Amino acid sequence: MTDKHNPRLLRVALDVMGGDFAPVETVKGGVEAARRGIAEVLLVGDAGAVNAELGKHVVADLPLRVVPSEGCITENEHPALALRKKPRASVAVAAQLVRTGQADAAVSMGSTGASMAAAAVTMGLLPGIERPGLGGNFLGLAPKTTILDLGSNVDCKPSQLLSFGVMGAAFARTYLKIPNPRVALMSTGAEEAKGNKQVHEATPVFKASGFNFVGNAEGMDVFTDRADVIVCDGFVGNVLMKFAEGMGATIAELLKRELSKALPRETVEVLAKKLWESTNTAKVAGGPLFGVNGIMVVGHGASHAEGIAGAVQMARWCAEAGLLEAMRQDLAKIAPKVAS
Amino acid sequence: MTDKHNPRLLRVALDVMGGDFAPVETVKGGVEAARRGIAEVLLVGDAGAVNAELGKHVVADLPLRVVPSEGCITENEHPALALRKKPRASVAVAAQLVRTGQADAAVSMGSTGASMAAAAVTMGLLPGIERPGLGGNFLGLAPKTTILDLGSNVDCKPSQLLSFGVMGAAFARTYLKIPNPRVALMSTGAEEAKGNKQVHEATPVFKASGFNFVGNAEGMDVFTDRADVIVCDGFVGNVLMKFAEGMGATIAELLKRELSKALPRETVEVLAKKLWESTNTAKVAGGPLFGVNGIMVVGHGASHAEGIAGAVQMARWCAEAGLLEAMRQDLAKIAPKVAS
Repeated sequence: MTDKHNPRLLRVALDVMGGDFAPVETVKGGVEAARRGIAEVLLVGDAGAVNAELGKHVVADLPLRVVPSEGCITENEHPALALRKKPRASVAVAAQLVRTGQADAAVSMGSTGASMAAAAVTMGLLPGIERPGLGGNFLGLAPKTTILDLGSNVDCKPSQLLSFGVMGAAFARTYLKIPNPRVALMSTGAEEAKGNKQVHEATPVFKASGFNFVGNAEGMDVFTDRADVIVCDGFVGNVLMKFAEGMGATIAELLKRELSKALPRETVEVLAKKLWESTNTAKVAGGPLFGVNGIMVVGHGASHAEGIAGAVQMARWCAEAGLLEAMRQDLAKIAPKVAS
Repeated sequence: MTDKHNPRLLRVALDVMGGDFAPVETVKGGVEAARRGIAEVLLVGDAGAVNAELGKHVVADLPLRVVPSEGCITENEHPALALRKKPRASVAVAAQLVRTGQADAAVSMGSTGASMAAAAVTMGLLPGIERPGLGGNFLGLAPKTTILDLGSNVDCKPSQLLSFGVMGAAFARTYLKIPNPRVALMSTGAEEAKGNKQVHEATPVFKASGFNFVGNAEGMDVFTDRADVIVCDGFVGNVLMKFAEGMGATIAELLKRELSKALPRETVEVLAKKLWESTNTAKVAGGPLFGVNGIMVVGHGASHAEGIAGAVQMARWCAEAGLLEAMRQDLAKIAPKVAS
């Protein structure tokens, strides 16, 4: 461990108290990220617990620092209330480090609701955003397709859907390096007449936005090249994401049964794992919160060290790529159009 | 071909003019169904075309009859308008055969919209139903889970969702032989507070229904044993169904790539086909229309003879199991509760 700052390294604040395997795996993942030179990692957590875990690793000269916090917000707590009661909780301190410019991005594997509340309250929201969104290229099988919202905004007005489209396009352009991303609305058919009331109300708003709107996408278009960004409300996105997880796991079991006689057990296990990961990207890496005025990557609670290092990597890439500035600029362009 | 009626055989009216490969594959599928003794098949179509196709098969003594119709409604036509213009179109005549008691069930691989319009106009709707629904145990990977609606009712009131639940439960009880099926609402979390406005409004209506309502299901619960019937609006159902198709096809391609070196090509093809079929049941068999006063099974336009015979089989099973009577009785039970 060192205080020597490497000026080229971005600084990522890692909430090491959040997640199912915190602080053991979170500290391990943070150490791993530092060792690989992904970022300077600020380990945010109860000092005693973090230092005890750090003692298990060789960390001399690694770009690591401990930033003490007090307590943690669990899945079972009401995010906003818990945040008020525990303003020094790990996720809140991590968000504050970004807010005050001491970190370039934050990462948490803890309660998604708490991460969203901490980010929204501490970092603030981007102009025109009412509530942060979750999204990204969540499916390994469709690594170029950005989908949002994935669950935080369940009933959406057209202006909210448009803001998802704009932020998703900024993500696709900066993080996925897709020039001029094509934005589509998730619907029940390609024709404009298809879809529900929400889609019909959103269509003219998207058309008037000046963004690269390509009309409706359908469920299979997550896997086709029809659009780079597919916008849906958080209800549909959440159902899809969990459906994909369930389907991936079920197919992995089917494959194990079907292949166990024809192939060596290890080959089958590797293939099933690959498939599982391809359908559960959110579980192994994470995604940024969309619409908060700072970068916070939220990962799945069940992540182990490898997944946590991956989330730190993603946070760094988002910061490096200028994701936040791109979203801010693009949201400003639509601001006059969606003002209600 | 014969006029000898086998009193034990149910009679299924098959629209042989509908579908991508009509009348070649539809007639072939009807002949195959008759040959297997699935049903007495009434081949409904332009007499010349049907007889020309029948000439290619040995049909002596098979329980088959030709019922002449005039023309066909295509995917590109507006269902209701086309139906008015062509009242003797194949799908309309098939529906009329059921209406007049000359057939026990109908099957069409043609335009789903036309099948729905023909069934609704000709057979009428069950009490309390405003528009037919599509659904069933559509996914081979989850053969015991009934989901509806899959696309025809995109914006739903609580009373509509409840009628889907009731009809889905009748389907699960009679067709899938599941006693006292558990009905759930598709949502974003198991807790009652989770979900969107639609789910929150529907929950008390489901609770008061007297049916076996087990609360919310999530996307992955299509594959778990949490519920037998999962109710969603047709927007969510349609997106899910098409997403499953796309994901199944993508995984099949992934498997071909991954396994092509380790296993013989034929083994891989068989496995990929099995997987594809498990994720595209709707394409190989079909599902009944929910809410019309008669049994009509709609299958995928791309079906070949085997899939068409399967749809005839399904129509027979639905009729034999008393699906319609079960739906009618159960809808009557909720009628006083959902009257608005």
